[in-house]
Amino acid sequence: MERTQRWRAHGGWQEVWRHQSQATGTSMEFSVFLPEAAAEARLPVVWFLSGLTCNWANVTEKGEFRAACARHGLIFVAPDTSPRGEGVPDDPEGAYDFGLGAGFYVDATRNPWARHYRMRSYLEQELPTLVAAQFPADMNRQGIMGHSMGGHGALTIALRNPDRFGAVSAFAPIAAPSDCPWGQKALGLYLGEDRGAWAEYDACRLIEAGHRVRALRVDQGAADGFLDEQLKPEALRKACERAGQPLELTLHEGYDHSYYFISTFMADHLNWHAARLKG
Amino acid sequence: MERTQRWRAHGGWQEVWRHQSQATGTSMEFSVFLPEAAAEARLPVVWFLSGLTCNWANVTEKGEFRAACARHGLIFVAPDTSPRGEGVPDDPEGAYDFGLGAGFYVDATRNPWARHYRMRSYLEQELPTLVAAQFPADMNRQGIMGHSMGGHGALTIALRNPDRFGAVSAFAPIAAPSDCPWGQKALGLYLGEDRGAWAEYDACRLIEAGHRVRALRVDQGAADGFLDEQLKPEALRKACERAGQPLELTLHEGYDHSYYFISTFMADHLNWHAARLKG
Repeated sequence: MERTQRWRAHGGWQEVWRHQSQATGTSMEFSVFLPEAAAEARLPVVWFLSGLTCNWANVTEKGEFRAACARHGLIFVAPDTSPRGEGVPDDPEGAYDFGLGAGFYVDATRNPWARHYRMRSYLEQELPTLVAAQFPADMNRQGIMGHSMGGHGALTIALRNPDRFGAVSAFAPIAAPSDCPWGQKALGLYLGEDRGAWAEYDACRLIEAGHRVRALRVDQGAADGFLDEQLKPEALRKACERAGQPLELTLHEGYDHSYYFISTFMADHLNWHAARLKG
Repeated sequence: MERTQRWRAHGGWQEVWRHQSQATGTSMEFSVFLPEAAAEARLPVVWFLSGLTCNWANVTEKGEFRAACARHGLIFVAPDTSPRGEGVPDDPEGAYDFGLGAGFYVDATRNPWARHYRMRSYLEQELPTLVAAQFPADMNRQGIMGHSMGGHGALTIALRNPDRFGAVSAFAPIAAPSDCPWGQKALGLYLGEDRGAWAEYDACRLIEAGHRVRALRVDQGAADGFLDEQLKPEALRKACERAGQPLELTLHEGYDHSYYFISTFMADHLNWHAARLKG
């Protein structure tokens, strides 16, 4: 694993790392913010999973997370959203919502996707091991968050691994991928048309099947153009209500799907994670 | 003047406007953040002038200014760095440090630059009038800041118009453009080789000539690759000391020339401006 870039920021270091991934069979990059306190202590880790078309750079440049991470002493890790590079197949028509930049945090089972599109294994197993070995990370105190497709990733990874994450939050997550066009396309191609195989990649269905997390927060812009067709926070609310899963869901008037929305509520999310990870 | 984009952000609105400029003879764009308090009161205005290659988007996406502007009730205006569009001549070799994205906040006097490169008139006269007419801006309480070439712009505009600005601050400004390659190239081409004509576009020379500002702050990264050759904060320090112009100059270990540096100290700068504009 090699560090490719770093910048002094908010008293700590914003870094970018590259490594050869066993899970995806490709070179992968991620960013990590190490607050000043990381020089002296093992710190909680918050994972941020990005949305369609993004890589580590979007939240790293626009996410406005460093001030709050510096204040609370949180390590912030932002992985890529898919494998990339020569030999990694993309959407046949180059669409933005599948293939490169759109891994949907699954382990694909269908060809030609199954060889490289293994973001679930990458994020649940490989990358945490590398992070624990390389950085002063207290892996007993982890939170996870994400945006849109990455909100879907954060919710499903946390629901499948509830002992690992003290808190999970999402900005405008794809909350019910089995029931929206983005999710149906991606899960259908990566996993095949048997919808039984989709259940472990659908937050609502995981909750219906009995999965629980300790603390769950979702913020959603009411002016988000993807709200009704793709995101469906009401489906998540209903699933949580039926299951008795506590959910803090807030709809914010006027906010859309952009990083202007994310950056507005990022500090609130990090304060919320810090309270649950450090308490 | 027409609004081309807006996003809800930090309780207010981040907007982008376009208008036909009399000064530059081109269509110009700028961004403006209107905090929630702008719905009910006239608010102080802070201008942010960007560096080489930038337009309004760089600081608007990466500057991390909105939280502090929302807290203090500050309108934040980010203009472009040059005229653009068909018929606007660029650097003959397409260099990044002259022409498009590199107007250096001067009124050019040499052809072919003199027709469109009139960023001084645009920022000193035209745009303030438009801002005062369009937004709930209290033009009696203005601050100005900038980065690199925009730090140069902020310093020189404030020094030439000290009654207008209660405070001026800069991140890594080009502090002595008559004595660095960036400045010599730009001022030589825009104004000609008579260095007498450069004096009103050089912060050190303006201070030597007797210009003063009420409050002056500069933050500079010690690991900035442009520090010694292009930026020369020590020249500004000496000019201020000789002239009795108060200057708060801080060198920050490890920080470079990037937005990771700017965003780290943006809230400090806005707190500092707010204290001087609202007191």
